[in-house]
Amino acid sequence: MLSLKGSVRKHLIALVGFGTVAQGLCKILLEKRDLLKRDHQFEFEIVAVSTRSRGTMFHPAGLSLSYLNYLAQNKVPFVENLKEWDAEDMIRESNATVVIELAHSNMQDAEPAITHCRTAFKTGKHIICGNKGPAAVAYSQLKALAKKRGCAFLNEATVLSGTPTLGFYKNSLRGNPISRVRGILNGATNFILSEMEAGSSYDEAIQQAEKRGYLEAEKHADVEGVDAQAKLAILANELFDLTLELQDIKRVGISALTQVHIEAARRAGKRWKLVATLSNEGDNIVAHVEPEELDLSDPLAHVTGSMNAITFSTDHLGDVTITGPGAGGEETGYAVLSDLLTLNTGVYS
Amino acid sequence: MLSLKGSVRKHLIALVGFGTVAQGLCKILLEKRDLLKRDHQFEFEIVAVSTRSRGTMFHPAGLSLSYLNYLAQNKVPFVENLKEWDAEDMIRESNATVVIELAHSNMQDAEPAITHCRTAFKTGKHIICGNKGPAAVAYSQLKALAKKRGCAFLNEATVLSGTPTLGFYKNSLRGNPISRVRGILNGATNFILSEMEAGSSYDEAIQQAEKRGYLEAEKHADVEGVDAQAKLAILANELFDLTLELQDIKRVGISALTQVHIEAARRAGKRWKLVATLSNEGDNIVAHVEPEELDLSDPLAHVTGSMNAITFSTDHLGDVTITGPGAGGEETGYAVLSDLLTLNTGVYS
Repeated sequence: MLSLKGSVRKHLIALVGFGTVAQGLCKILLEKRDLLKRDHQFEFEIVAVSTRSRGTMFHPAGLSLSYLNYLAQNKVPFVENLKEWDAEDMIRESNATVVIELAHSNMQDAEPAITHCRTAFKTGKHIICGNKGPAAVAYSQLKALAKKRGCAFLNEATVLSGTPTLGFYKNSLRGNPISRVRGILNGATNFILSEMEAGSSYDEAIQQAEKRGYLEAEKHADVEGVDAQAKLAILANELFDLTLELQDIKRVGISALTQVHIEAARRAGKRWKLVATLSNEGDNIVAHVEPEELDLSDPLAHVTGSMNAITFSTDHLGDVTITGPGAGGEETGYAVLSDLLTLNTGVYS
Repeated sequence: MLSLKGSVRKHLIALVGFGTVAQGLCKILLEKRDLLKRDHQFEFEIVAVSTRSRGTMFHPAGLSLSYLNYLAQNKVPFVENLKEWDAEDMIRESNATVVIELAHSNMQDAEPAITHCRTAFKTGKHIICGNKGPAAVAYSQLKALAKKRGCAFLNEATVLSGTPTLGFYKNSLRGNPISRVRGILNGATNFILSEMEAGSSYDEAIQQAEKRGYLEAEKHADVEGVDAQAKLAILANELFDLTLELQDIKRVGISALTQVHIEAARRAGKRWKLVATLSNEGDNIVAHVEPEELDLSDPLAHVTGSMNAITFSTDHLGDVTITGPGAGGEETGYAVLSDLLTLNTGVYS
């Protein structure tokens, strides 16, 4: 039997974006370098980092992780190893073997991230995305191009931050087709609804969510369900092999919910949650994101605060639910690491 | 990058035992033969089945799956392809490449299952266990022997029936060490406690559990926590690389709980659960199975009926919880299939 254990592989990483997720990833990589080599035969260097506001750093032998962590903690300009490259140049010209796309998600046309992916594949580089745009908007074209070029296109970080979802399905539910997924896919709205249950008004809950950094820059994307809709599109593409467009997914946000609704649900022994549902039975595809009044017997009713959860309805196990964090720089950084380790096994599809 | 996709492998299977799990496995294999070949490059034949009461069947080119399913549904003697072998002979003499050990778990000395494993490894055959004995009682010796002979020793089916647990940790939490696991690992006791919350006495709840087939032949093993204790020992061995003996794990069952306890917990807004805990922080190992009065804010408090759940406390994600079935022939049969598919990737440790 062939075993991949034993042969250490070295990955040269280029980062597009240097926000909280990239910084979370760098923190983990600095902490775990020895463990990753010893237990997972995984070696790496970060050879390039490109940002819009601080420029692009590049060193073909690898940038210092300690220096990157210093830059993460101190909002100073990049001064060493500067290159007059934008992200596109970096992807094309650098010696990276894998590009990690972590720029802000843009759900209109997902650019420039789609172009970044195309350039990476055309120059033989793998793509790991934290940015939801490419997989939500152009999954099948990008997957086909990646395949043609022998590259990986991995998106674990786009769905439930670090909580294993796509990899869980691919590795742990093999041979066990799913008919439905149903989940709480957005941490900010779940936090807001939990705050409202604790007595806050909608506006107060929004303020609390902002204060804790749970809301995206465009908070509309969270509270109107756009973020959950994009995640459901990615699940449709990755798990069901369906080519859904965002507009194929019905979407209702939580902004119309008031204390009156929350209180009425409580009296009825129920709880409001923003639930994303995708089912594919026969030719009948159902895909929607909307607030639902859940019975307390529903496992999703007990997912509170910024936690996320997803239930897979499977052929041989019935329902299996994973619950875990739905946000956070280190958490999402870990999802990127898990894709790097998938890449390292050489088995990806 | 090396990809294992594309090359179909054929596995020759010998079954020790032909109870509900083996029958559940055969049902899935019959249903999914084409899908497994197409999507997972997995081919197989069941070449031998050995039972204590019905004898041993063997055909080097493969027994008929339809005939095996007929035998599963009809309690008739084996008449075709009979061999005068016991399980040990079958393992040694047959042309199987993988032996699936599904005989009744014996927590005293785990024999003859340990001997079956040794014989399999010595003759170059992989072992997949549904029987908890070998991994609970002799994990490190068997793992070492398997490694020496280039064989796999896989135990997914021993912990939460089909709910992915060992594979989930190995595949989806790579590079993310855990400090603690905590779970509801026994479906029968969880069902009994749920029935008692619905008003049944302890004895009535036991009767209900027996009627539904949730209790093991020796119900002592369930209600006194022996089954959960064995599962915790397996988790200690597989996830923490600790060599725990069963007696290192403190164990208290649920047989002393009465309606008085259940009612007092309800009034305090709590719920009794049989909780297994294993933590390894610094040099301090904590391992116990005991009834705990859980706050309703605890995710494990909402795992009801025969469902199981396990929470992994991780370095980079905090707590991640999986909830799914804790019993059932098809469910546990699926866990065996998931180990076969792991074997098929060629990447196991």
